[in-house]
Amino acid sequence: MTSIIPDITKRTSIGAQRNPASEEAILTAAAEILSEGGLSAFSIEAVARRAKAGKPTIYRWWPSKAALLLDVYHRQKGETFYPDTGSTRGDLIAFLETLLGFWTKSGGEVFRSIIAEAQSDPAALEALRDYAVTRCRASGIILERGVARGEIQADLDIPLVMELFSSFCWQRLLTGRLDASREQLSHLVDAVLTGFATQNRHAQ
Amino acid sequence: MTSIIPDITKRTSIGAQRNPASEEAILTAAAEILSEGGLSAFSIEAVARRAKAGKPTIYRWWPSKAALLLDVYHRQKGETFYPDTGSTRGDLIAFLETLLGFWTKSGGEVFRSIIAEAQSDPAALEALRDYAVTRCRASGIILERGVARGEIQADLDIPLVMELFSSFCWQRLLTGRLDASREQLSHLVDAVLTGFATQNRHAQ
Repeated sequence: MTSIIPDITKRTSIGAQRNPASEEAILTAAAEILSEGGLSAFSIEAVARRAKAGKPTIYRWWPSKAALLLDVYHRQKGETFYPDTGSTRGDLIAFLETLLGFWTKSGGEVFRSIIAEAQSDPAALEALRDYAVTRCRASGIILERGVARGEIQADLDIPLVMELFSSFCWQRLLTGRLDASREQLSHLVDAVLTGFATQNRHAQ
Repeated sequence: MTSIIPDITKRTSIGAQRNPASEEAILTAAAEILSEGGLSAFSIEAVARRAKAGKPTIYRWWPSKAALLLDVYHRQKGETFYPDTGSTRGDLIAFLETLLGFWTKSGGEVFRSIIAEAQSDPAALEALRDYAVTRCRASGIILERGVARGEIQADLDIPLVMELFSSFCWQRLLTGRLDASREQLSHLVDAVLTGFATQNRHAQ
């Protein structure tokens, strides 16, 4: 089996070779527990019981409950986050809309609870930090495509700029304001893509 | 007494006329409790006792513990967040550096705990949302000065763009990565201020 989340599995692995069938069973059990019982039912113990796996096995592959929860969450997101619309502007707007839309529909509760937990649990913070850094690199494909098309400056720190866009979504999630309009998102993307200084590097 | 936080007091007031002396006593008591006993010691009850105020009085002026905590937190930030460095670029870099620096030094623990609490407490969420919206408007002075100087496009949605910058800081706080370098912050500000598209509105 090929994992659909190679960057995550690589990240959370602490050297132990994962058994794909066990990994799948654990992730499936974790997803079922989450969907049936919600966050309050989610524990490493409950996942181990349902997946018929040992707790040490789970902890060997996922160093914390938050790390496992983030993997389950990430699988639910699916692979539709970086659609190639043909332009960087379109790709960025689609990225923002898709992420805010996913959080509105279903994934927002889990993700905001992980962020909350990370503020008092160092293991959750580490998992969240790894996840955030990994996602900003992965979403960079939007701007990498732009560079390849000659649309985006090649010297841009791509993960840093993608952090800016994902951060905007985080703040919207964490303040209960996921209902950004397409007009707002377009304005934001246009503003940063072309700049909002009256004079800029290229016009100078 | 003139409040140093007029936008906040206006926001959290629910019609009742505040008594400035009582307000000051409550905010001072709240700040003392926070600095002496930390977050775990902070409660409306403890503040009422120390300020010799009634709990109903406090609740009349601050609808939730989070709202009071945000006022105390905001007072600790002081007034140095929007220095006029003479250019929008300098002002934006200074804003990011000052906010990340304040959180590193002292205020970060309180603010991230409020964000965490807001994910499970609707009253805290409301207080946090109001605070975030208010701050994005207030920090807009940086870009408003830029518009006045002719540096920034007049049709920009200023609070929306400032949200982008503050969100970046939030994500850094919430993932324990407050140590952004000045080089990174400068790159980020340059990228969005002048745009990172190879072609832009002005060059076209």
